[in-house]
Amino acid sequence: MALKTLSAKAAAALDKELMSTGAFSIDQLMELAGLSVSQVVYRVHPLNKGSRVLVACGPGNNGGDGLVAARHLRHYGYQPTIYYPKRSKSDLYQRLAKQLEDLDVPFVEDFPSALKSTDHIVDAIFGFSFSGEVREPFPAVIKALEETKLPVTSVDAPSSWNIEEGPPKSGVGSSFQPEFLISLTAPKPLVKHFQGRHFIGGRFVSPSIAKKYDFEVPEYQGLDQIVETSPTGQKL
Amino acid sequence: MALKTLSAKAAAALDKELMSTGAFSIDQLMELAGLSVSQVVYRVHPLNKGSRVLVACGPGNNGGDGLVAARHLRHYGYQPTIYYPKRSKSDLYQRLAKQLEDLDVPFVEDFPSALKSTDHIVDAIFGFSFSGEVREPFPAVIKALEETKLPVTSVDAPSSWNIEEGPPKSGVGSSFQPEFLISLTAPKPLVKHFQGRHFIGGRFVSPSIAKKYDFEVPEYQGLDQIVETSPTGQKL
Repeated sequence: MALKTLSAKAAAALDKELMSTGAFSIDQLMELAGLSVSQVVYRVHPLNKGSRVLVACGPGNNGGDGLVAARHLRHYGYQPTIYYPKRSKSDLYQRLAKQLEDLDVPFVEDFPSALKSTDHIVDAIFGFSFSGEVREPFPAVIKALEETKLPVTSVDAPSSWNIEEGPPKSGVGSSFQPEFLISLTAPKPLVKHFQGRHFIGGRFVSPSIAKKYDFEVPEYQGLDQIVETSPTGQKL
Repeated sequence: MALKTLSAKAAAALDKELMSTGAFSIDQLMELAGLSVSQVVYRVHPLNKGSRVLVACGPGNNGGDGLVAARHLRHYGYQPTIYYPKRSKSDLYQRLAKQLEDLDVPFVEDFPSALKSTDHIVDAIFGFSFSGEVREPFPAVIKALEETKLPVTSVDAPSSWNIEEGPPKSGVGSSFQPEFLISLTAPKPLVKHFQGRHFIGGRFVSPSIAKKYDFEVPEYQGLDQIVETSPTGQKL
């Protein structure tokens, strides 16, 4: 069976539809997306194997998912640290950051030194709307993610990868291969280049929406907001 | 140790604070509250013991928590039916209802006949802001909940109970004793009259807020959004 993925264009249309006819608010979707991300981290990094997690957040929705995930991780007992150099001015993002500050979660500006005092990393820099080139200050961050021996969990896409084509042919990100990836709602075409453990999250899609966008709602178990698949998205 | 509970007045002030200085949106809080409710139902009513759940929703926030819980329950594999006779005109509630309609969850108007074809019930009629008298059409609904042999899970308060004083001294609700209760963020004083299984939910409160309002954040386990306590709220 052919792998069903969502192109960048289809993912953007789906998001738009969820928030219009689907009647979801962005607050609600981001809360559920971030919750999914936190569940992947909980599953792949048991608390007693290292509770320090560095969450690298980009300027858009992917970064927002990271902020929500960090809050849930803090409540689970992890010690998150946030790198969020290009803060969005939108009200929602400011509120998500404030919620973390109220939990005494530190925000740091020096990524290389933060890397030295964490056990694992969440890459919430760029998601399905990324295209073109990696802007400052992120090239050095992605290079550091590429070179670190610490495990990285990428949200929706390994940052710098083209959503359709996968890793860039050369330069920053070309050898970035995170250990873990969570695809939100459905895998994007880039998963054909992914070699780590892959999860799907976002247990809020109705069967009719999935049918319209021609992807499968995975078989979530119990209360899980995530399900593990093969690296490229097939049922295990 | 004295039991720490939140009076109706303190609960209202806490809600207001979470949404102002706490920086939460109502969409976000309601999503997390409803998620907690769904986890209680999942824990006390295993799917293979009866998947039909009738969710009775009141006109305010308690009803909104019920709508969110119903959506999560539908995704877990339950078959919810919604009784929601006094729909709020606010945008949020209309959206929560639409999300259920998109999952083909039926809304029914005849409560007694809906009771005949369900396995258990969620009482999301009135929460901590209830006081005074039960208005139409809810007296008959609460009487039916009082008389049914089916298990009822109440959200934040057994509907019709006074938040401070517990069950009314006479009339509708005076002998209402639900099997299950989930207190959101903290138990209300009425729990001293409650005799069933009690849970606390809402894993989003910061230690500083809890301290300010003089209640304990319970020790949630793993990814759980709920924790079981004694009927009156003490640690088990």
